[in-house]
Amino acid sequence: MPDQAREGDLAATMRDIGVRARRAAALLAEAPASAKAAALHGAARKIRERIAALLAANAKDVAAAEAAGTGAFVDRVRLDPKRIEAIAAGLDDVAALPDPVGRELARWPRPNGLDIARVAVPFGVIGIVYEARPNVTADAGGLSIKAGNAAILRGGSESFESSAVLVEALRDAVAEAGLPADAVQRVPTRDREAVGILLSTPGLCDVVVPRGGKSLIERVMREARVPVIAHLEGLCTTYVHEAADPAMARAIVHNAKMRRVSVCGATETLLIDRAAAARLLPAILDDLAASGCEVRGDSFVVALWPRAKPASEQDWSTEFLDAIIAVKLVDGLDQAIAHINRHGSHHTDAIVTSDAHAAEAFLARVDSAIVLHNASTQFADGAEFGFGAEIGISTQRLPPRGPVGAEQLTTYKYVVRGAGQIRP
Amino acid sequence: MPDQAREGDLAATMRDIGVRARRAAALLAEAPASAKAAALHGAARKIRERIAALLAANAKDVAAAEAAGTGAFVDRVRLDPKRIEAIAAGLDDVAALPDPVGRELARWPRPNGLDIARVAVPFGVIGIVYEARPNVTADAGGLSIKAGNAAILRGGSESFESSAVLVEALRDAVAEAGLPADAVQRVPTRDREAVGILLSTPGLCDVVVPRGGKSLIERVMREARVPVIAHLEGLCTTYVHEAADPAMARAIVHNAKMRRVSVCGATETLLIDRAAAARLLPAILDDLAASGCEVRGDSFVVALWPRAKPASEQDWSTEFLDAIIAVKLVDGLDQAIAHINRHGSHHTDAIVTSDAHAAEAFLARVDSAIVLHNASTQFADGAEFGFGAEIGISTQRLPPRGPVGAEQLTTYKYVVRGAGQIRP
Repeated sequence: MPDQAREGDLAATMRDIGVRARRAAALLAEAPASAKAAALHGAARKIRERIAALLAANAKDVAAAEAAGTGAFVDRVRLDPKRIEAIAAGLDDVAALPDPVGRELARWPRPNGLDIARVAVPFGVIGIVYEARPNVTADAGGLSIKAGNAAILRGGSESFESSAVLVEALRDAVAEAGLPADAVQRVPTRDREAVGILLSTPGLCDVVVPRGGKSLIERVMREARVPVIAHLEGLCTTYVHEAADPAMARAIVHNAKMRRVSVCGATETLLIDRAAAARLLPAILDDLAASGCEVRGDSFVVALWPRAKPASEQDWSTEFLDAIIAVKLVDGLDQAIAHINRHGSHHTDAIVTSDAHAAEAFLARVDSAIVLHNASTQFADGAEFGFGAEIGISTQRLPPRGPVGAEQLTTYKYVVRGAGQIRP
Repeated sequence: MPDQAREGDLAATMRDIGVRARRAAALLAEAPASAKAAALHGAARKIRERIAALLAANAKDVAAAEAAGTGAFVDRVRLDPKRIEAIAAGLDDVAALPDPVGRELARWPRPNGLDIARVAVPFGVIGIVYEARPNVTADAGGLSIKAGNAAILRGGSESFESSAVLVEALRDAVAEAGLPADAVQRVPTRDREAVGILLSTPGLCDVVVPRGGKSLIERVMREARVPVIAHLEGLCTTYVHEAADPAMARAIVHNAKMRRVSVCGATETLLIDRAAAARLLPAILDDLAASGCEVRGDSFVVALWPRAKPASEQDWSTEFLDAIIAVKLVDGLDQAIAHINRHGSHHTDAIVTSDAHAAEAFLARVDSAIVLHNASTQFADGAEFGFGAEIGISTQRLPPRGPVGAEQLTTYKYVVRGAGQIRP
């Protein structure tokens, strides 16, 4: 793979990448599970072996980021030995998962003797467009290989140098496992036009997966002429029902909001039953405030807990990704569900209650990819679901919905076995 | 529902339909299986009861079609008592299927005690855009109800009057079953702009399903700003392998091509191994010719069977939907698979062989929604798969792929049950 786009010929470069990817995908679709696992373990080993080269490349990215960006931004780009080990361990985890390709998802006989099976197969070629964090290069590449897909990676220019080292490790390991190195390719240019070509050229990718901020995702959804697995924002809500266990409610709300405020599974809105607010809410808000969380409440919340700032209408529809929480009193389950379905982003929402009926009603009627009972919304994560890693949390309604791991990067075909049947 | 769009206010009409659909979808998602089945059986009964009104409405459509169209076109619009009974019976079949909503697709515990289930849920609101045939109104409406979705139907203006009667039967039966009549709505105007609004208004539909000719599907895919379940053409191939049973090959090829030439599962291309061509091909082509099929062959076919016309390059990529077949000799399995993956439409392809190894290689490597061994490609049909009815055969790569029945009109959510877990 060339390290630089040939001057003036980005379209030809992308076409070449597409042809290589298509060829690799055909081979990878039939690769034995053992070869794919060997490739992933091999990539983990190479990343550990090449830690010095990776840190050197990352230093260049960090220097560029420092010249351009803020502290949080630089932090996302930066690698250290611990983060590199986590990247390698993630690949080992994915390698150890059951192979998702070839699974018989269903099989049934027909009265005429035909035998019909629905069998998992790879998507084909996946374009992955993402920002900033270099670990996505390894996660996305590793999951694609596991699912038998060829990946075309278009990482953020902020981690251009780090991603190059990671991609070479993946490609070398794939080749050593006897599979086509072009199973993982990187768009070898910072030119933003490459994304446009990826999104709009029919037949180049079978699906595009954007991972990043709102403006990236919206651009991809607007420009894409191929199917997109969309990951929109995570406006997650935790609802404390009147029958909640007080200690559990405190622990879950604090964790759901404050464990990490910048992840998509972080709770942004807290709803609490009016009947329980005086009894439960002050302790919950004291905990949050003690950890530095800003509380914005409706007028009832402000009356109950005067340190709260008044919430604006906008706050109910805002993914803060920060130590800020919007808090509202509701008159029971129906109002809580209506609020979530209207203001939430259909990502992840939780109820805390000891009332099994209320819990089941919430789980059934909240229209989100992930609904939880008595657990933190921060469990919205592929690894926590047992998927090894994830490419993101899909907020679209059609499959794949929720955490997208290797299994979710497969589709299916129908295999019909007959003995000469013709249709009457 | 108004029978006419309010003048000058199509956008408001469509918005109103969208609001009603969204409200109906929320109720339908939780409807018990028995109520949905009662609604579908009720609709079948009402269609049988209202046969006179339906025939009278259809006569108006047929008169308009005769004024405008060709014989085949008029035939697609025309209903008769037998076709009406088939429509009603289709609804009874769908009613009798297992309920696809609420199925537990997977469930597993996590080491931290969390219990995770993947549960089937409806899409929400489905927009269905189709042409000509009035039976699609009943099939699409019935499958949507079964899957717990609200449907917005936009049928061809050619069957406008017939569809109106069918939709009223569905709505009346849904209401009698205690469900919201707005589970099925019809765009009450022939204005083509209504399709544009359906395709481009965010939040109006969760998914759009086009069913019809190539230009309709291409328009939908180009204009849609919501996910589409695409049904492109069916360029199906039957491959006669050198180890094919001669009698079986003759019977399957004849059925695959000639049973009905206008369906998407009809075979358009015949590939046959060079090693078996002299032995098998003449009898196969004699059979086809005897049924009035035009044979277009490559030079080897013409040499073997002189009645064949020379095939053009274009013929390998043409969905004839007519009594025409393109025939080519290939040098074995690899060449056959390469031809199909290059020229086919990833819809339905079959191999005829007594060699189990060759069959399995074909089934694994042909990249189509449906692959068959020793059976006719005309089995590409939801009812033949046991789905009761179908909305079409999806040729897209992401799910749903292949025949789209009620089960395929559902997505899933993750239901996570905890006991106070917080994420470390």
